[in-house]
Amino acid sequence: MILFENVRFLDTTLRDGEQTPGVALTSEDKVAIATKLDELGVNVIEAGSAITSEGERESIRAVVAEGLDAEICSYCRIMKQDVDYALECDVDSIHLVAPVSDLHINVKLRKDRESVRKMAMETTEYAKEHGLIVELSGEDASRADLEFLKSLYSDGVDAGADRLCFCDTVGLLVPEKTGEIFTDITSAVNAPVSIHCHDDFGLATSNTIAALRAGAKQAHVTMNGIGERSGNTSLEEVVMTIEWLYKCKTDINTTEIFKASRLVSRLTGIPVAPNKSLIGGNAFTHEAGIHVHGLLADTSTYEPIKPEIIGRERKVVLGKHAGKSSVTLALKEMGFDVDDMQLHEILDRVKELGDHGKKVTDADLQSIAETVLNIQREAKVVMDEYTVVSGNRVTPTASVKLRVDGREVVEAGIGDGPVDATVDSIRKAVASIGDVQLEEYHVDAISGGTDALVEVLVKLSKDGKMVTSRGARTDIVMASVEAMLNGINRLI
Amino acid sequence: MILFENVRFLDTTLRDGEQTPGVALTSEDKVAIATKLDELGVNVIEAGSAITSEGERESIRAVVAEGLDAEICSYCRIMKQDVDYALECDVDSIHLVAPVSDLHINVKLRKDRESVRKMAMETTEYAKEHGLIVELSGEDASRADLEFLKSLYSDGVDAGADRLCFCDTVGLLVPEKTGEIFTDITSAVNAPVSIHCHDDFGLATSNTIAALRAGAKQAHVTMNGIGERSGNTSLEEVVMTIEWLYKCKTDINTTEIFKASRLVSRLTGIPVAPNKSLIGGNAFTHEAGIHVHGLLADTSTYEPIKPEIIGRERKVVLGKHAGKSSVTLALKEMGFDVDDMQLHEILDRVKELGDHGKKVTDADLQSIAETVLNIQREAKVVMDEYTVVSGNRVTPTASVKLRVDGREVVEAGIGDGPVDATVDSIRKAVASIGDVQLEEYHVDAISGGTDALVEVLVKLSKDGKMVTSRGARTDIVMASVEAMLNGINRLI
Repeated sequence: MILFENVRFLDTTLRDGEQTPGVALTSEDKVAIATKLDELGVNVIEAGSAITSEGERESIRAVVAEGLDAEICSYCRIMKQDVDYALECDVDSIHLVAPVSDLHINVKLRKDRESVRKMAMETTEYAKEHGLIVELSGEDASRADLEFLKSLYSDGVDAGADRLCFCDTVGLLVPEKTGEIFTDITSAVNAPVSIHCHDDFGLATSNTIAALRAGAKQAHVTMNGIGERSGNTSLEEVVMTIEWLYKCKTDINTTEIFKASRLVSRLTGIPVAPNKSLIGGNAFTHEAGIHVHGLLADTSTYEPIKPEIIGRERKVVLGKHAGKSSVTLALKEMGFDVDDMQLHEILDRVKELGDHGKKVTDADLQSIAETVLNIQREAKVVMDEYTVVSGNRVTPTASVKLRVDGREVVEAGIGDGPVDATVDSIRKAVASIGDVQLEEYHVDAISGGTDALVEVLVKLSKDGKMVTSRGARTDIVMASVEAMLNGINRLI
Repeated sequence: MILFENVRFLDTTLRDGEQTPGVALTSEDKVAIATKLDELGVNVIEAGSAITSEGERESIRAVVAEGLDAEICSYCRIMKQDVDYALECDVDSIHLVAPVSDLHINVKLRKDRESVRKMAMETTEYAKEHGLIVELSGEDASRADLEFLKSLYSDGVDAGADRLCFCDTVGLLVPEKTGEIFTDITSAVNAPVSIHCHDDFGLATSNTIAALRAGAKQAHVTMNGIGERSGNTSLEEVVMTIEWLYKCKTDINTTEIFKASRLVSRLTGIPVAPNKSLIGGNAFTHEAGIHVHGLLADTSTYEPIKPEIIGRERKVVLGKHAGKSSVTLALKEMGFDVDDMQLHEILDRVKELGDHGKKVTDADLQSIAETVLNIQREAKVVMDEYTVVSGNRVTPTASVKLRVDGREVVEAGIGDGPVDATVDSIRKAVASIGDVQLEEYHVDAISGGTDALVEVLVKLSKDGKMVTSRGARTDIVMASVEAMLNGINRLI
């Protein structure tokens, strides 16, 4: 059996992915994502559903106008009207979806099997007459009568369908059943069959892989696994499983995966969980002491693949499980030279902080090390005073009085709100000692009252050097000021 | 073959889950989570790793002191010292982990196979002499020589080990290989074998299921699938796959799953992605028009299970894909009576908003409907002016000028920061029309610059009535004000 030969990918980030509740992409967003997907090397981009609205058709036309390598596709129901709208957008192909389970046929469509068959055939023929590539898809196929499905597929191929698709619409498949079904249908029909899975039980990737192993030729995927409810099969998981666990090549440029993931997350506003495989914030982050020890000796001990393969970098962070090796590594990077007793003392304090439920940042470690080594390092930049005025009828304005190297510096700044104005004034005040850039600003979700603790993390850079620091206060402005000053003092 | 009979669950949320970078749980947190896991019905709670620190031991002792039904377990390396620390905590059992791949043995431990075997046996015997239940675990077993692993397991059982465990430490298994391995090892050894998977390629759940189908008796899981890197196997996915896709019972009280998930997310600070299966914010949320139509007829059309089964509720939201049926449903809930032409007009405007990349909330739909129906519903409370002053040397102070029922009301308030002060002043200003309570205040994580869009959600109550409303601005104070006023106007 030759596995995974020439697997094709239909990416539906812009259609099924956009159906994620709350997501609505502009035309520019769709073009940006489509361009990135094309760079990744997907074969088909399902750019939207032309029937939805005029705005949607503009977006699809804009994607078509880019002249990408990928085939551009629109979703259609089995209605000529839908095909007409797709034709208006000048797409290459349609994903023509016919409900095939009795539940969907009777309850949703209030039709019967033979009416659906007739509608599907007429629409297929109509689309073919107008020069479209047709992928005829069975919706809710995992709950359909397989004999009916196969006969619908066969008729569809006779009517001109180029490809077929099996949709596990509510994510009910398990891998071994998927394998059986695909062995059956791919030997019964005379056209390539796609697999389209949903992740309601967390099995979308393994079901997709099982289908490809049993004869499916194309996988429907979305970037980051976004989509309705629990989303669709993740592009990144299927591609990397094929490449690294089955050692077969795909046409995907894997080093672009992380960039594509970030773009989709940013434009859709759907965050990626820290513990999401491959693309999550922690996927290549290491904390526990013993693991970092192994990792230093050979990264493969605690890493399934090298992060560079998907365009990422390794991160090592400290915490309550921090061991000798991770702390030593971090201290070395900070330029501290410690003996064994000092290291032991530092380690104890790091763990103590962890036991109190605190994250241990670089800045925390630095201040612990300085205390243990008895280094009197006076902060170069000290906050004397800040005041900020904000409101709906005033320009948010802040003033700060800082001591920079003992000199008093007073500056004012404006911004989009009190936080922005204050940060602006601080940046101006420290301009004399260097160009400090705010690279990232992050506030964890705040829940509780308006007096809940707010933790602000900032990433600052100066002349290519980068630090992360933290502030934690009940007042978001004060927390931001604290984080900025901690970071600035470490940068200079 | 009898599938999934008496499957046991070892939950390692408090050990492997806590090793998530940045997570550190206090003793109270661990007790709260352990208590909830016990209510869920897991068989074993791995409460931590006793060797880590004194704080960790206090936490484990606190969990033990709760007298839960579950067996309480500590992680141990194959060293007597680790067992001594576990004994100090009075746990029932240890998860005794021996590296078994040559990579881990040689590179990480700098030992050879026979030294590891000797250490594992001595530690097992030592633990048994001290009355502990021992689960002897092979770390990185998926890259180990299976013959060596089986002989280690056999020797372990001879030395007194009660259970064995196979760890796919860096998530390299695929389901069919997992099945083969478990068929082999469970027939070769004379003790129950556990499966412990990591989700580096998104296959942890299907690998765990494959192992259980091939003879594994216990699954290692974490709530929400948290853990190092991409995390461990999700409790919720394995349980619901067994119960709903294989139709076998487990001992887990599934209706408590969502509550347990929220508790773990809140205490660890690890957010759950909206598109996470079962527990994600969107798992039972429906947007697209045609789907809501099917759903209204029969919820099973677009839902794999009813949300109540895991203690959740269904949500229907609007957006650019909103169809007639979802908008009709929402309007009916709001008490609007519209004819077909009005409905069409409302639908067009909803889609237009969606085409511009906007989420469509209840409040948006209400204002669209009011415009189309030409209803002049003037807001009772209108913001004229607010000003807030804050800083490190001033008491955060806000003033507001509102029009309440046409009357001008001016009030001032103070607080912990600009947001708190402003909210305080608004509450005072509307006191004349009723006692509006701020029940919940939530800000999603903010990433980007300090001028990123901030979305504030507030839940307000008055005389037992509750509303949720939203404000979205680049300024957190302004977003909070907007959310408060939207909510107040809907409440009165």
